[in-house]
Amino acid sequence: MDFAITLNPEAKSPLYCQLYEGVRRKILAGDLVPDQRVPSTRTLAKYLGVSRNTVAQAYNQLLSEGYFQATVGSGTFVCEQIPEPLIDHTLAQSTLSSQQRILSTFGASLVDFDPFAPPEPAAAINFRYGAPALDEFPFSIWRRLLSKYCRLEHNPLDYTSDLLGYQPLREAIAEYLIRSRQVHCQPEQIIIVNGSQQAIDLISRIFINRGDAVAIENPSYLGARQMFTAQGANVCPIPVDDSGLLVNTLDTYSQFSIKLIYVTPSHQFPTGAVMSLARRLELLNWSQTHDVLIIEDDYDGEYRYGERAIPALKELDRNDTVLYMGTFSKVLFPALRVGYLVLSEELTQIFCRAKWLSDRQSPLLEQYVLADFIREGHLERHVRRMRHLYNQRRQTLVKSLHQHLGQHVKILGENAGMHIMIQLNLPLSDREIMNRASRAGVGITSAKSYYVNKTDKGKFVLGYAELSVEEIELGVSKLSKVLLD
Amino acid sequence: MDFAITLNPEAKSPLYCQLYEGVRRKILAGDLVPDQRVPSTRTLAKYLGVSRNTVAQAYNQLLSEGYFQATVGSGTFVCEQIPEPLIDHTLAQSTLSSQQRILSTFGASLVDFDPFAPPEPAAAINFRYGAPALDEFPFSIWRRLLSKYCRLEHNPLDYTSDLLGYQPLREAIAEYLIRSRQVHCQPEQIIIVNGSQQAIDLISRIFINRGDAVAIENPSYLGARQMFTAQGANVCPIPVDDSGLLVNTLDTYSQFSIKLIYVTPSHQFPTGAVMSLARRLELLNWSQTHDVLIIEDDYDGEYRYGERAIPALKELDRNDTVLYMGTFSKVLFPALRVGYLVLSEELTQIFCRAKWLSDRQSPLLEQYVLADFIREGHLERHVRRMRHLYNQRRQTLVKSLHQHLGQHVKILGENAGMHIMIQLNLPLSDREIMNRASRAGVGITSAKSYYVNKTDKGKFVLGYAELSVEEIELGVSKLSKVLLD
Repeated sequence: MDFAITLNPEAKSPLYCQLYEGVRRKILAGDLVPDQRVPSTRTLAKYLGVSRNTVAQAYNQLLSEGYFQATVGSGTFVCEQIPEPLIDHTLAQSTLSSQQRILSTFGASLVDFDPFAPPEPAAAINFRYGAPALDEFPFSIWRRLLSKYCRLEHNPLDYTSDLLGYQPLREAIAEYLIRSRQVHCQPEQIIIVNGSQQAIDLISRIFINRGDAVAIENPSYLGARQMFTAQGANVCPIPVDDSGLLVNTLDTYSQFSIKLIYVTPSHQFPTGAVMSLARRLELLNWSQTHDVLIIEDDYDGEYRYGERAIPALKELDRNDTVLYMGTFSKVLFPALRVGYLVLSEELTQIFCRAKWLSDRQSPLLEQYVLADFIREGHLERHVRRMRHLYNQRRQTLVKSLHQHLGQHVKILGENAGMHIMIQLNLPLSDREIMNRASRAGVGITSAKSYYVNKTDKGKFVLGYAELSVEEIELGVSKLSKVLLD
Repeated sequence: MDFAITLNPEAKSPLYCQLYEGVRRKILAGDLVPDQRVPSTRTLAKYLGVSRNTVAQAYNQLLSEGYFQATVGSGTFVCEQIPEPLIDHTLAQSTLSSQQRILSTFGASLVDFDPFAPPEPAAAINFRYGAPALDEFPFSIWRRLLSKYCRLEHNPLDYTSDLLGYQPLREAIAEYLIRSRQVHCQPEQIIIVNGSQQAIDLISRIFINRGDAVAIENPSYLGARQMFTAQGANVCPIPVDDSGLLVNTLDTYSQFSIKLIYVTPSHQFPTGAVMSLARRLELLNWSQTHDVLIIEDDYDGEYRYGERAIPALKELDRNDTVLYMGTFSKVLFPALRVGYLVLSEELTQIFCRAKWLSDRQSPLLEQYVLADFIREGHLERHVRRMRHLYNQRRQTLVKSLHQHLGQHVKILGENAGMHIMIQLNLPLSDREIMNRASRAGVGITSAKSYYVNKTDKGKFVLGYAELSVEEIELGVSKLSKVLLD
């Protein structure tokens, strides 16, 4: 049998991990061929003398990472197309050095970490994702506040005595959340972290044991998926449509008991869908019934154009089902590294201990400055200005795309955020599209790596917040020339 | 048998953890009494029907946390004195709420986290540990550099493209390490982290699987011990003497294969011992023979008085056995949150991925400022000034203690660092000593929590760096009055 894999019950690594690793290596080495049918979990379990659950866990991991493909009604197959870079990368790294041999499971998972980060195109006109309009940021105000607080009498240079973060900053955020996101919480429920990635990190460690199931959107934010995977979670990809997460699909993972659901309801990343109210209620209801926590990543909820912003999912939560996270990296500047979590009061004590163990506290000087920046109204003034500006840029981008690419392009997602996702209908591979764009000095990013199975083609994510109207028009014009040639 | 504990092989938690937890709860509930003899691992293993290794792992954990006490030649006993606060605290928390029930093993370990942090005495004259002389810090220079770099043209507000940290800062640190610590490394071997606690965190996750053995000094820095424990390490406490870690004691833990050894050779925390050259060579030799990595935490290596600073242990390392970590929190200011790790080049790639997953990057503006601060010579100028100042303060403290407490006090440790450890020979409990000091407006901290078995009495850690000569004299005088009354 092609699937003959030697498993060692004495080894430290769980059987399902060994099975997963064995199958994976066989696929990468070409011993299992594309489109080959995979034996049923029952058959393989019997053959290998392990439990069916062990095989199911390994299969699920292989499915979620795109090594297997499942077709409803006809079974599971080896994926028809393993991305080339993955093969090269993995084989090149597969001989572990002596120091790598003592890595933890977490550490070892980082050796073969692919994709490590989405490819970041370097180009003159770069439609990269996540960058705000830095040239519009009120540096002089930030500088003034830095100067004000970088003085002995303000004592921002000592350890904080407040493990949750600087109290006035937490108060300012609590008030800001009511005004901007209709989230009502006490400052004691807020913990300051180094941007949303640290929020995801703390949640992962505090809730996920190796093998626990975590549901994510598919496609999904890579930073979350990668962290869950590295932490050993069994990642269950749930599809999304125009109304957000397909909540009823959660039931198909009933054999794994899901512990956490990670969602971006305000502006699904990267498709841009806004979760409908019906879907929100369905999700809350499902989670409460199944005793599951929801992680709401409200990464760019501030930006909704033309209509009133939709309140956060957290606003509907009456049972502490939602862990809410936000960040100032996108509304202010990425290097700031200040984000926050809103938690039930019983969880804040555990989170602040985990934060203390991780890195003690977030830099205090920035917390002083940010607290004033919010209290003096600069944050909301800046958000209002950027909402106007980004809306113009977004409209320009959409108009230019329609004008230059016509029936070859479809705009996905709602009128929100700092990026759009597009579907290009062209007889070109994603790689070829990115290469041609790059040669014309235009950076665009395939959305492939955001999908768990990596099979969606022709989808691209275009950030527009940091580009001027002129750059956007020029970039799309150049893009159309090289793509339609 | 008193040790009848129900173990469930089907449960998620490993058997040794269940056994550990069962014994622990029996001790806290008073079902096992102080000084009661503990059955041998062989006897209990047979009785419970588990492997001897399972029992040994549980025992080791109980020993390391002070629930058991081992006496050479006469066996192991239930500890004669379980600290009261531990009992109260644990029992109060032992009813987990519904949200706590879904915590990971890591998360759950934080619920009963004791001690969470060393008691920080709040007092008019506070001999607290770790605080530098903030009023001597050159704020105006720092402020000038902040203002210089907080401008659009310097672009310190974007994501870094350099996952290891800002390149010029890493270059400046590499040069500084040669001059100050005789550590030779390339900038490509340095990764910037948020203070030394994040260095410990990353190392823990990258190397430690639940149940792996990690050797620490006893007494030891709490931030490291707590992190290793939360990460599930089997912590093996190794005693120290005037020459540092008793390397030959490592062999007594031969049944657990030790993966990492955490040491503070420049100035053992908290005893103040400087590791002798002979001991350094012995440690390197032992580690290379046993294929173990050494973590060198060089937290205050800059401060050595009267004599030339001893080079770092890393300086002797020819085989990439030592992971070297340093921090700017103690030489500049605690709220800065910038530290660094020096690693072999093959490990940096894994560490920078773990860092990216943890919180992307350390704040960039501070990295710009710190790079200039080092390059322009301000760091070394500040260290030189502080070395002179701290030496005076240290001498004042030692002299005052001898003068006021005479034969009741013994000064431990070498002429280094920012704190001293003292042994008080007084017929008072540590708690009573701290209470009396506190009533006199003087803060001092018992060293008990730094010891794994918490049995050492009368030892106190006194930081002096932030106190003036007058405050030190007044504080010791007040202290002697309330203690000798």
